[in-house]
Amino acid sequence: MSVQEQRAVVLCSGGIDSTTALAIACNEGFIPYCLSFSYGQRHAVELQAAERIARAFNAREHMCLDIALDRIGASALTTTIPVPRAAGSADCIPVTYVPARNTIFLACALALAEARACSAIFIGVTAVDYSGYPDCRPAYIEAFQRMADLATRAGVEGRSIAIRTPLISLSKAEIIQTGIGLGVDYAMTHSCYDPAADGSACGKCDSCVLRRNGFQAAGAADPTRYAGAPHVRL
Amino acid sequence: MSVQEQRAVVLCSGGIDSTTALAIACNEGFIPYCLSFSYGQRHAVELQAAERIARAFNAREHMCLDIALDRIGASALTTTIPVPRAAGSADCIPVTYVPARNTIFLACALALAEARACSAIFIGVTAVDYSGYPDCRPAYIEAFQRMADLATRAGVEGRSIAIRTPLISLSKAEIIQTGIGLGVDYAMTHSCYDPAADGSACGKCDSCVLRRNGFQAAGAADPTRYAGAPHVRL
Repeated sequence: MSVQEQRAVVLCSGGIDSTTALAIACNEGFIPYCLSFSYGQRHAVELQAAERIARAFNAREHMCLDIALDRIGASALTTTIPVPRAAGSADCIPVTYVPARNTIFLACALALAEARACSAIFIGVTAVDYSGYPDCRPAYIEAFQRMADLATRAGVEGRSIAIRTPLISLSKAEIIQTGIGLGVDYAMTHSCYDPAADGSACGKCDSCVLRRNGFQAAGAADPTRYAGAPHVRL
Repeated sequence: MSVQEQRAVVLCSGGIDSTTALAIACNEGFIPYCLSFSYGQRHAVELQAAERIARAFNAREHMCLDIALDRIGASALTTTIPVPRAAGSADCIPVTYVPARNTIFLACALALAEARACSAIFIGVTAVDYSGYPDCRPAYIEAFQRMADLATRAGVEGRSIAIRTPLISLSKAEIIQTGIGLGVDYAMTHSCYDPAADGSACGKCDSCVLRRNGFQAAGAADPTRYAGAPHVRL
């Protein structure tokens, strides 16, 4: 590894936010190690998107870890609890919240970052156009950083692994505009929590609504394949 | 669930420390939800011990989650890097350190605790007779607690899930004496990092040395089955 080489773990869900975070990491010169999770999510189709995206960005490694969070349950994303057909409000935590998900994902990213000598972890959380999940807020990320510095050999030896959240204060429209500016092809991405068997998006869940409104506000064409003609916005 | 019912997730590795932490949790009146991990460890025989122990303590649930940390590597416990045949020093972090292991384990425990309405997580870390892992120290645990309170629905709603470390300032001998006082049968437990195919302990790795010295200092018989007659201390 050359002295100049900078490596980063990038958490990749296959959606708009993590793909934009990946584009930003690459634009900053980081060599990306992409990390995805098969966690029993009903929208496992997102993992195919993550794989396409990691390949498109020449990730040095794309690891998809299996963790059966559906055995833990308590979320509409990992059980048969229905996914609400309307956008939630950030004032209350919706049933799509998966207990401690970002903490589990960041903990595994921390392990991979330490093992691969990465100096940063990129996570595409945003606290603007978001679903109200507690583990997307700046105070949470700051607390994770403090904990991570105490948890690892890297931290003890003074090589802090930086938790990078380049999207945290951006609206969905700003995220999309940033990505377009970096040449991201959002047709590769998947957002829907409750896709049809053919992978098409429902157009009505929280994640779809945030995505559609984001493209509209950004003044950009939404390349999503929605179930049913009225939702197609190509 | 009755108003009085108190539940706790207990991280169970099958060793002395976590078994004692489980006994303490039960003695305090918690209903235990045991959580173990099959993470590609070379001493996976410890999981059979964890199962026996969870059953002996009437755990309401014993979940063993698979997370392939051997794919992440960088530890003698999950790769072919040899396990040292001598006790390490707490002054440096040994090769048996598994990157971010306790953070990953605690993150999953946090998810299970939230999903099962548990008010505490018990983890048998100790910062006295230990291997020098950074993620066993009090400052780390305190930082995890702060992060956990911000990460979860429970934390946001004012129901903090307490990270309990009843052994953190106890020597191995004091841990064993505490367990014996609570009726723990340590013959159920497994400590060795590098056991023989028949499950017998090597008697020489860091974990074996801490265990043997602990029983000796506690003035208690060591029920461990060591490989080779000279190590048998029954």
